[in-house]
Amino acid sequence: MEGVDHLAHERNKTEFDVDAMKIVWAGSRHAFELSDRMARLVASDPAFRKDDRTRLGRKELFKNTLRKAAHAWKRILELRLTEEEAGQLRKFVDEPSFTDLHWEMFVPAIKGQGTDEQQQKWLPLAYKMQIIGSYAQTELGHGSNVQGLETTATFDPETDEFVINSPTLTSSKWWPGGLGRISTHAIVYARLITNGQEHGVHGFIVQLRSLDDHMPLPGITMGDIGMKFGNGAYNTMDNGVSKFDHVRIPRNQMLMRVLQVTREGKCVQSNVPRQLIYGTMVFVRQTIVANASTALSRAVCIATRYSAVRRQFGSREGGMETQVIDYKTQQSRLFPLLASAYAFRFVGEWLKWLYTDVTQRLQANDFSTLPEAHACTAGLKSLTTAATADAIEECRKLCGGHGYLCASGLPELFAVYVPACTYEGDNVVLLLQVARFLMKTVSQLDSGKKPVGTTAYLGRVQDLLHCCCDVQRAEDWLKPGVVLEAFEARSARMCVACAKNLSKFENPEDGFAELSADLVEAAVAHCQIIVVSKFIDKLQQDIPGKGVKQQLQNLCYIYVLNLVHKYLGDFLSTGCITPKQGSLANDQLRSLYSQIRPNVIALVDAFNHTDHYLGSVLGRSDGNVYPKLYEEAWKDPLNDSVVPDGYHEYVHPMLKQQLRNARL
Amino acid sequence: MEGVDHLAHERNKTEFDVDAMKIVWAGSRHAFELSDRMARLVASDPAFRKDDRTRLGRKELFKNTLRKAAHAWKRILELRLTEEEAGQLRKFVDEPSFTDLHWEMFVPAIKGQGTDEQQQKWLPLAYKMQIIGSYAQTELGHGSNVQGLETTATFDPETDEFVINSPTLTSSKWWPGGLGRISTHAIVYARLITNGQEHGVHGFIVQLRSLDDHMPLPGITMGDIGMKFGNGAYNTMDNGVSKFDHVRIPRNQMLMRVLQVTREGKCVQSNVPRQLIYGTMVFVRQTIVANASTALSRAVCIATRYSAVRRQFGSREGGMETQVIDYKTQQSRLFPLLASAYAFRFVGEWLKWLYTDVTQRLQANDFSTLPEAHACTAGLKSLTTAATADAIEECRKLCGGHGYLCASGLPELFAVYVPACTYEGDNVVLLLQVARFLMKTVSQLDSGKKPVGTTAYLGRVQDLLHCCCDVQRAEDWLKPGVVLEAFEARSARMCVACAKNLSKFENPEDGFAELSADLVEAAVAHCQIIVVSKFIDKLQQDIPGKGVKQQLQNLCYIYVLNLVHKYLGDFLSTGCITPKQGSLANDQLRSLYSQIRPNVIALVDAFNHTDHYLGSVLGRSDGNVYPKLYEEAWKDPLNDSVVPDGYHEYVHPMLKQQLRNARL
Repeated sequence: MEGVDHLAHERNKTEFDVDAMKIVWAGSRHAFELSDRMARLVASDPAFRKDDRTRLGRKELFKNTLRKAAHAWKRILELRLTEEEAGQLRKFVDEPSFTDLHWEMFVPAIKGQGTDEQQQKWLPLAYKMQIIGSYAQTELGHGSNVQGLETTATFDPETDEFVINSPTLTSSKWWPGGLGRISTHAIVYARLITNGQEHGVHGFIVQLRSLDDHMPLPGITMGDIGMKFGNGAYNTMDNGVSKFDHVRIPRNQMLMRVLQVTREGKCVQSNVPRQLIYGTMVFVRQTIVANASTALSRAVCIATRYSAVRRQFGSREGGMETQVIDYKTQQSRLFPLLASAYAFRFVGEWLKWLYTDVTQRLQANDFSTLPEAHACTAGLKSLTTAATADAIEECRKLCGGHGYLCASGLPELFAVYVPACTYEGDNVVLLLQVARFLMKTVSQLDSGKKPVGTTAYLGRVQDLLHCCCDVQRAEDWLKPGVVLEAFEARSARMCVACAKNLSKFENPEDGFAELSADLVEAAVAHCQIIVVSKFIDKLQQDIPGKGVKQQLQNLCYIYVLNLVHKYLGDFLSTGCITPKQGSLANDQLRSLYSQIRPNVIALVDAFNHTDHYLGSVLGRSDGNVYPKLYEEAWKDPLNDSVVPDGYHEYVHPMLKQQLRNARL
Repeated sequence: MEGVDHLAHERNKTEFDVDAMKIVWAGSRHAFELSDRMARLVASDPAFRKDDRTRLGRKELFKNTLRKAAHAWKRILELRLTEEEAGQLRKFVDEPSFTDLHWEMFVPAIKGQGTDEQQQKWLPLAYKMQIIGSYAQTELGHGSNVQGLETTATFDPETDEFVINSPTLTSSKWWPGGLGRISTHAIVYARLITNGQEHGVHGFIVQLRSLDDHMPLPGITMGDIGMKFGNGAYNTMDNGVSKFDHVRIPRNQMLMRVLQVTREGKCVQSNVPRQLIYGTMVFVRQTIVANASTALSRAVCIATRYSAVRRQFGSREGGMETQVIDYKTQQSRLFPLLASAYAFRFVGEWLKWLYTDVTQRLQANDFSTLPEAHACTAGLKSLTTAATADAIEECRKLCGGHGYLCASGLPELFAVYVPACTYEGDNVVLLLQVARFLMKTVSQLDSGKKPVGTTAYLGRVQDLLHCCCDVQRAEDWLKPGVVLEAFEARSARMCVACAKNLSKFENPEDGFAELSADLVEAAVAHCQIIVVSKFIDKLQQDIPGKGVKQQLQNLCYIYVLNLVHKYLGDFLSTGCITPKQGSLANDQLRSLYSQIRPNVIALVDAFNHTDHYLGSVLGRSDGNVYPKLYEEAWKDPLNDSVVPDGYHEYVHPMLKQQLRNARL
């Protein structure tokens, strides 16, 4: 059976150029080729095998990750990979490890917050991995509220040092990846105190372990914080706890790009604008959105392929049963997720542009678009990660019972993904920030301040409050103008309603607290416009490849109309559309499902995931699911012996009624 | 700090009699006392410790489960526990094991489908656990479609035996718990073939393993199917695969209560009605609904207590930060789940009554209410398990980052719970059955057939199509009549709309397939009425205890109005309520959150969960979260040594730039 393509009949139905779509998905031919090369490099290297991961105990699992991280680094050096290639290689190794924190948090923090001298000293060490860095911000008692961190860094003018201290149990650093057992250094965030005065939270480079024997330095207690959700998953990472007992570091290890502490302990603001950190935030969140589309694409690829393999019911005259992907219930759950993967991909691409734009403006001291860019990235981070986490679990359910097996790949994908809803800003907290920005924008409309960027539509609020959707037939829902107006009107009306309700409170903060659930809903409505409009923008571009644009169009409107259906309450209660129009949206959606159905296998093939990266028997590219599931089962340690360990002590006495005297 | 109640200030706010509420939750004083006694028995027995479970490798974990199962059985015998007590004890041991299948599937199957002689032969062996039974229905290629099972049982008249055979790979039994390594027997479902003719799928008692040395009997290949979702969780269970190669069993091991195969191989229908199996189905699903409320109550208890302990933001003048439970965003996500736990509890209680009613009618050969009872239990199974699975994950998110730690208990609770959405009928397949029944009911209205039980309201369809909701002020939403009418009108209108759309198709089956997503939504709307109406019925009862009824009333309307908000699209598009009324529902909901807020800790205390059963550091009854989290972390195997295994091979060479020559 090896070598047979069980999905060939599906692939033969394809109505578009899959190779061209692969380029669209990757973003460019360059991006496709690089990613393809790195994915194959990892997949073909037996040292990166990961199919045994969910069966390993914690210590074994962790040791295995250390091995892979070292091997990855060795290959990166041997092949003289560029930074971009190395990042892709690490992505395809697909195993959280201490190197993630080193490259994605420690190095960027020094680059962003360190002075030139600090960068010159620390970056070469970090680039060669002569030191391994972590990023220690979150504490046992403080996550979202960074300003509430309790760790202190007190300047001692006598010795020209900072004293890093954890005054309480809850001030223990808690969660930083790599901190538990591996990192040699960390950026530790602490309240700066000089001359008895507090100066807010800042980052300090602290050496944690000896570079000789890896023992913790005096005054530092460190450990792993224990098992996390899922098999394999983030248990490959030593998320850690650390307590500092008056640990001394030289003054020049405070990251001083923005604020400097002088020899005398005086705080001096540099001429570097504080807003610079927002640039970093835009960058990090852009990465998170891109990762959301990738994670979602993996889950959707698995569920789509397996839905085409799996047959159940509907056999007529002893023939084959129906492929579950042909059931409308399956389509109405799965196809919107496929569409979301593409939608998030394109909005992620746009965020890359936004980052460049923001960076250029910052360099020109133009901060005018920053609040809008900040709100926009916060909202998109929240929207895409929440949707992706839910979608992965939905894809698991769409695979029926077998989705519950680790061999399906979905349990681990879920467990590894869900922290994205919490880290880098809790999703609800972020939506409240978006809502706050929207309320401010609305309140300033009267004063003539023109909303910019993704909030520009609020400048047309009077029109949007009174417009009428002119959908008459189902196909009218395929008009970009109609769709955008409906989404903009809904968001504008929800924003205005919130603003009106807020104005009834004497204290605006009390109102904001009381109405926060409504405000979150308004923020979601606003963020959906961004995703929808960037997908529509994409369709305006010149997209080569036979039939590619047609498929993207179908996906776009599946995404859009599914939102209309799901948030029908919003659209109807604000009077943006009528019940009849809602029902027409539903009709159009069903018709789009039928149109896209022959192409769905090719649409997930376009993600170009290797079987290694997918890590799923159900999602195998060749569809040869059942024999491989069967094979996989026998690898479980429980199958090492026919009579299991424990049988003689516990089961046999039970069967023989001899338990009474057994020692258990 | 030990012994201090960090939640005392919360408990002091309580406005109702918690002990009385405990009785209400348990269902009766008897049920409370029994459950309380068993919970404490397990919690106080160190042999049942489970806090190390998520750290164990598969083999160790499984052996540990065998030990606990034996210990539980020993205690059951020593204490001469009743069947009811033994069931509760197993529940509180809280670890899936082969005994679940034995008691909950194998024994009931023999009782329900075995003849008197079969019961006399097999039940005593099973009751003493001299044999251990599994229930082998699902196959690698067939789950939902039981009639599609491929395993055959061919009668051989020469030897008076059945030959059990797995003709294909996909016919391998796959999933049965206990089958992998432990069960000595199983009820195997197979297509009955006698004299070359097929007679549908039936159950056969097949011995799997020797009672002497536990080796598989000739012709049977068995193994564990491998790791499943989550740490600990269902990996304590040896869900198994088995293939039968012409395995012979005596004729009298086919379960023959309904259909008998004679010595000559003739099939003879007994006078026992086939419908009897529906009685069992009602029973099993009633258990599933009860389990949903229990699982949900555990998650809600953890999230509620931790939300009262956790503080973040909002500190004024250096005082304490705000408890996260005081944020409206937290309340609007958490309190509806608390209300759902109670709602599911009461509908589960009502299902017990329904089971008794159905059983009595069956005994009197009255099958008239059976289709309705069947649809009703199918729908409630789907509704409660889907909501509970989502709710557990939502509770985990409500605990922020720390919810991701296994120490929170929530990852395992989720992983252990989610299969409920798939087993005993996939949730979507079940809703389609409900929809089919609803469409039949609607189509028969004209012919004057009166709908019964939970569909009785459809008899008033003409009124419901034209009624107008008369909510004028927010408080009007607290009127039972108003609520029921709104829900009934919405469901009736959705059903009628579906029926109308179906009638446009020439072939009704094509229509049903095409419109299945809409039909599922109508089914959900119908099932919600059952939950809502049973909660409202409960409030009509005499409920002792100061303030208890008031709290239940608040919970009931939180449940109801949250549904109105969540399904606003349904209510508005069917014209059952106006946007203004939807907005008033929201206002009332916010007010109910404030009313219930002081009581929420007491409302989760009323579940009477021991700390052992909860298995969560975040949900500790005394609220002493942070020191215990810190303590727990150090138990991870990674913390056994300060320099981790693998450092010398993989990390040190990296730091020292000596990787080039390393063997990895």
